[in-house]
Amino acid sequence: MIRAGILITGTEVLSGAVSDRNGPWLARRLEQAGVEVAQIAIVGDRPEDMAAVLEPMAGLDLLITSGGLGPTADDLTVAAIAGWLDLELVLDGDLEAQIARIVSALRARRGIEGQAMDAGNRKQATIPAGATVIAPVGTAPGLVIRPDGPVRRPICVVLPGPPRELQPMWDSALATEPIQELLAAVEDRELQTMRLYGLPESQLAHTLREAQRAGIELERLQVTTCQHRGELEITTRVPAAERAAYAAFERFMEDAHPDQLFSRDGSTVEEQVARLLGDGGRTIALAESCTGGMLAARLTDLPGSSSYLKGGIVAYSNEVKTAQAGVPAELIERHGAVSEEVARALAEGVRSRLDSDLGVGVTGIAGPGGGSPEKPVGLVWLAIAGPAEETSTARSVRLPGGRAEVRERAVTVAMHMVRRALLTAGA
Amino acid sequence: MIRAGILITGTEVLSGAVSDRNGPWLARRLEQAGVEVAQIAIVGDRPEDMAAVLEPMAGLDLLITSGGLGPTADDLTVAAIAGWLDLELVLDGDLEAQIARIVSALRARRGIEGQAMDAGNRKQATIPAGATVIAPVGTAPGLVIRPDGPVRRPICVVLPGPPRELQPMWDSALATEPIQELLAAVEDRELQTMRLYGLPESQLAHTLREAQRAGIELERLQVTTCQHRGELEITTRVPAAERAAYAAFERFMEDAHPDQLFSRDGSTVEEQVARLLGDGGRTIALAESCTGGMLAARLTDLPGSSSYLKGGIVAYSNEVKTAQAGVPAELIERHGAVSEEVARALAEGVRSRLDSDLGVGVTGIAGPGGGSPEKPVGLVWLAIAGPAEETSTARSVRLPGGRAEVRERAVTVAMHMVRRALLTAGA
Repeated sequence: MIRAGILITGTEVLSGAVSDRNGPWLARRLEQAGVEVAQIAIVGDRPEDMAAVLEPMAGLDLLITSGGLGPTADDLTVAAIAGWLDLELVLDGDLEAQIARIVSALRARRGIEGQAMDAGNRKQATIPAGATVIAPVGTAPGLVIRPDGPVRRPICVVLPGPPRELQPMWDSALATEPIQELLAAVEDRELQTMRLYGLPESQLAHTLREAQRAGIELERLQVTTCQHRGELEITTRVPAAERAAYAAFERFMEDAHPDQLFSRDGSTVEEQVARLLGDGGRTIALAESCTGGMLAARLTDLPGSSSYLKGGIVAYSNEVKTAQAGVPAELIERHGAVSEEVARALAEGVRSRLDSDLGVGVTGIAGPGGGSPEKPVGLVWLAIAGPAEETSTARSVRLPGGRAEVRERAVTVAMHMVRRALLTAGA
Repeated sequence: MIRAGILITGTEVLSGAVSDRNGPWLARRLEQAGVEVAQIAIVGDRPEDMAAVLEPMAGLDLLITSGGLGPTADDLTVAAIAGWLDLELVLDGDLEAQIARIVSALRARRGIEGQAMDAGNRKQATIPAGATVIAPVGTAPGLVIRPDGPVRRPICVVLPGPPRELQPMWDSALATEPIQELLAAVEDRELQTMRLYGLPESQLAHTLREAQRAGIELERLQVTTCQHRGELEITTRVPAAERAAYAAFERFMEDAHPDQLFSRDGSTVEEQVARLLGDGGRTIALAESCTGGMLAARLTDLPGSSSYLKGGIVAYSNEVKTAQAGVPAELIERHGAVSEEVARALAEGVRSRLDSDLGVGVTGIAGPGGGSPEKPVGLVWLAIAGPAEETSTARSVRLPGGRAEVRERAVTVAMHMVRRALLTAGA
């Protein structure tokens, strides 16, 4: 088994300003390549902290770093890695010229007056002796470094922090000789994912114990579970010799939770909704109040969504609910904006006004204010309007958590209602 | 200086399925409390990997763990921490009864048939001797553990993974004696954040070097910079003795980049837009094509947004642009959906139809498909329609990156155009 570590240098993540996106992205790519990720470490700009987290990574086969390659003085990844691998830093003249050309072109395009930035260029072109350079997508070059000292160290891939630079440069790194050689040694393992919706985690724990009692060896399958946006995910890394065991596990889960197990191929509910809409040649339109555009945003994350998504209405104020989605004002007055009646009227209104096959209405109290004893924070009404009676439904949920989590979970509930309606309509 | 580490146990993050949210959240809280975060480590469910990442954290003052407290067998944080601190695990009978009550109530509410889950309860109630229990928000209790062995180890705070449980339980942990004592020793430091928009990172690097040349000691201010969603952020941890130096640094940045430095108090552009709208008693409405609801979602992230956001139209199809936002069909035919004319018509249409003071129109090519030599992927037209000529503007940008990044950056550009329009209107 080839094992890798990921080192994210990011004071911005350590200060809590942003969530790191590179760690999960690289981890997913490594998993797909059959490499096991042992850890992701995030450190700031202190050389001693970087040295401390590198320490337990010495025994790994591969280390990928992200960030700390900029022209500013607080960017010190290259120096830290070179020090760890005991390699000398040398100025690469060709690389320096290449970076200077890129920076000049950038500045010209932005109309910035010429200013000496040679110090920054030179810093970015100073690299460990013997390293393979990965051509920059932005201004910072990446590196692939094969250690050759007497002490055990992993092969290091050094990449810049911005995802749009890191991602194509990782693909370039994959094509280099050291990485190709490493991956050739990977054991054949399949990453399998099941997803469940509508099941408490404690119930899943119980089912897994039952599976084990029934003779399914979950340890050999490396089964892990997690909660995510109101769903449960079961991830398994299946060695070639254990495929039959995995098939038995899958059947066990299907028998135990036929209604909750909605994905056996790892597809997300968004992807399933997109496929069902596309296959059926159906269109959808959304009327959102408390989710404020998040449902539309999640559906339009997928390329090609314009073929089935007509559009949506973010009906935040009552006026807009009436004027744009056709919800009768007296309905809102009588039942309140968060009610079954208004959710249904939103779904029907947006379906008819945007001329789509399905309409979705979401209205709720995301908080922190606006709750009452009868209608507490977390109460959300959702409705689907379809061409036939059996595709038109409404339900209410009481979602836990703060504003962000209520909104996120409401989107998940809506997605599953749409999926269910499409499956019903297709039957 | 009090230094902390954060340990996230999450196979779901290591497999790349999700981004960790607890690390940044805890980091921000620690920063606010004056504690420096040395590292965030993410590991899976292997005891030996957990031991490896704990190793370099031995010298820290505080360790916070998230996750791995569930009833399933792959959750092993408590055992790992107890082993590291050399503490015995004991079953806490009261805690077991408390968890059993919570689980029963949960199951009754969900209408789940009674099933023995005692093994899970017992596991969650088995804790290190002498630990302070933090009452569960979900089913898993948290722990605050003060080490008392001969070897140096940090105070450990053990919290569950779901953010809605972790967040209130962190507040409870803060109130415990070991943490109160630790925080009493914190040095007085202020976290300061400046934000810039419209400046390349290389230019900022140049300005920072100039500041240093002008005698401002950036190292003593612990200045760090990062790029985030198309903006630059400068974070500084200012010791009490260096406040005058920070004021000088702030003045230097203001003089160097008066148009780009939009935030000196750390406020985000969304917060500024919300404040400007609220103070002026103005309302806004959005017509989004390529951003598909993301602009509305970002504005409605903030509580209280219903007082200034009328709503929005996700005008994904051309029909919806015409029927809902009033964009003349022949305008789309003549200029194409991605054009200055259509962006302006979207902004004006949504402004008049939703009866708001400001209207915003966004139309672009997010990719990966749909680009052409004249209108490549990344081209986005944005427009603002306001009550007066000087508040009505349009501009085009060519944004780098893939679909997700183009969409995210387009939202940032739109936010800054709205901010600018509101400042102009207010003047």
